[in-house]
Amino acid sequence: MECQLKITLTEQRKEKPASDKLGFGVHFTDHMFTMDYTEGKGWHDPQIVPYSPVTLDPAAMVFHYGQTVFEGLKAYRNKDDRAWLFRPDQNFKRLNRSLSRLSMPLIDEDFMLEALKQLVATEKEWIPTESGTSLYIRPFVIATEACFGVRASHTYKLIILLSPVGAYYAGGMKPVKIYVENHYVRAVRGGTGNAKTAGNYAGSLKAQEEAKEKGYEQVLWLDGIENKYVEEVGSMNVFFKVNGEVWVPELNGSILEGITRDSTIHMLKDWGVPVVEKRISMEDLYEAYTKGELEEAFGTGTAAVISPIGEMSWNEHKMVINNAQIGELTSKLYDQMTGIQYGLVEDKFGWSVEVTKA
Amino acid sequence: MECQLKITLTEQRKEKPASDKLGFGVHFTDHMFTMDYTEGKGWHDPQIVPYSPVTLDPAAMVFHYGQTVFEGLKAYRNKDDRAWLFRPDQNFKRLNRSLSRLSMPLIDEDFMLEALKQLVATEKEWIPTESGTSLYIRPFVIATEACFGVRASHTYKLIILLSPVGAYYAGGMKPVKIYVENHYVRAVRGGTGNAKTAGNYAGSLKAQEEAKEKGYEQVLWLDGIENKYVEEVGSMNVFFKVNGEVWVPELNGSILEGITRDSTIHMLKDWGVPVVEKRISMEDLYEAYTKGELEEAFGTGTAAVISPIGEMSWNEHKMVINNAQIGELTSKLYDQMTGIQYGLVEDKFGWSVEVTKA
Repeated sequence: MECQLKITLTEQRKEKPASDKLGFGVHFTDHMFTMDYTEGKGWHDPQIVPYSPVTLDPAAMVFHYGQTVFEGLKAYRNKDDRAWLFRPDQNFKRLNRSLSRLSMPLIDEDFMLEALKQLVATEKEWIPTESGTSLYIRPFVIATEACFGVRASHTYKLIILLSPVGAYYAGGMKPVKIYVENHYVRAVRGGTGNAKTAGNYAGSLKAQEEAKEKGYEQVLWLDGIENKYVEEVGSMNVFFKVNGEVWVPELNGSILEGITRDSTIHMLKDWGVPVVEKRISMEDLYEAYTKGELEEAFGTGTAAVISPIGEMSWNEHKMVINNAQIGELTSKLYDQMTGIQYGLVEDKFGWSVEVTKA
Repeated sequence: MECQLKITLTEQRKEKPASDKLGFGVHFTDHMFTMDYTEGKGWHDPQIVPYSPVTLDPAAMVFHYGQTVFEGLKAYRNKDDRAWLFRPDQNFKRLNRSLSRLSMPLIDEDFMLEALKQLVATEKEWIPTESGTSLYIRPFVIATEACFGVRASHTYKLIILLSPVGAYYAGGMKPVKIYVENHYVRAVRGGTGNAKTAGNYAGSLKAQEEAKEKGYEQVLWLDGIENKYVEEVGSMNVFFKVNGEVWVPELNGSILEGITRDSTIHMLKDWGVPVVEKRISMEDLYEAYTKGELEEAFGTGTAAVISPIGEMSWNEHKMVINNAQIGELTSKLYDQMTGIQYGLVEDKFGWSVEVTKA
């Protein structure tokens, strides 16, 4: 499919940050993709333009009623200088599911994938090459109509930003301490928990801050109904290895359908590791822990890929997992998943999509 | 308290819309109030400036993680040309509660009230005078830092916009048909339901649209845990008159603490009408209905003030309330509440605050 879009290149290239000074989502590339939506006209004017501010009426609906969704994925550049995306079709599929939940207009997934490839090809020199670094990609859509009526906007803007990011674990992978949240709730059945929308993140900050004050790095979210079943960890999906089996919370409508989550399940099954998607109660996890059967725990997400959990605090219980060391399976998953992403390992699943020249 | 703020008046006044063409939140006045926040420096540079676009980095956190809160209140102008606000102190109190829930910096309530008075005094000629019209006031705060890290922003912008609005019931007050929502959920205990934040509204649009398709004007939200107890109606609080008593859902953490709700309770109690704040199940309401005891139902909110409910559809049950006519108590509440707001009725509660000249 040919992707027809207007390209306006910048005349002022930014200086690229050193690969050890990248951080996460603080540096942005020279260009961005934008596209506008008007009711009746549909999506129009797709273009690659110099990175520039967004100018909106102060009454724009995104500021007031939060109609906005986003995606997150990465581009990797390997040793022979080819650039790759990891399952980008899945991101645009999910973007459409999020758009639908938020009463926003759907996008053409194939067109968006071609547009993204052109954008990344344009910015290829911005993809860092050092181990663990990558180019973080952030597509998002915002409601732009100036109106205080509580209804769906009639106009929207879609933007894709690119940000070169450092290794998530600058000092090497390190297990994190998790606080099992028993007061704040991230999402509930019938809400927006399985959509990638701003409100889910805004509501999570308070719990995250309070956990930090107590000495924990992330929050483990329980279900909003019984405050009993595991949902997510921070903004990642979560897995537990219990007595040789891997447990992962089932997709129940309030959990984000993570692409790294799905890839992890596929990879484990391919290795013959039994994976059980089910409701997981903290009681069950604690019981497994006391029996010595809670062998490993880890989060999955685009930013960290695989993030080992070393300790969980649940009410008065403290659970130290695998002596707060990175588990064997956790480690293998990280190596294999990033191996495919960086083109170092055979991609038997067909997940990598090459970014060809624009 | 003296309010020190810089005022820059516009050189190009807009034409004011005709009072029968106002609508809701589509026209905006000549000026707005803005104030900035920077970590370490606090809130600074309060000013009244010409109404103008907001220019933000596309990576500004409000677009991605939804850190934003707002308020809504009205200014009224009465026959002797004096302008009044209705309980504005309560709006700034609630704004601070919302800011706290969203991990955003608190504002000085007294300062903000003085700033608002100055802004409204500056725009006094924009307050329409026809019956039922008013000047809608929208204070809001957005996270402005450009960063993809999931954490609270270090910079924010507070803006107050003013919009002359028409009578909510252009063709006279009319009872609405309500769909009792049994799939989508607005909020849950531990979430952000009692904060006035964008995400609550974004998540509600889908249910609202589906109800409209089924022929209903608003959605009645049930609790997110058991899908059994009444929470809100549309973006209003809800009241039921049952056998001479008035029932209102108790504030449980997921219901917005409406200022019109609070005023209604005070007014009813002052009249000697028994008011019960409690958990109200749909079963109880339906039982009262079948016994002929569900006498009136209405929503309360800043936009409509008091909005009569004529019909509720709950699963297979259709409940027509008071023959789909406006109830006597509903009508009296509307007259007395708006009477105080427009200065036509003695304000025995001390709710009205005069806007004195800047």
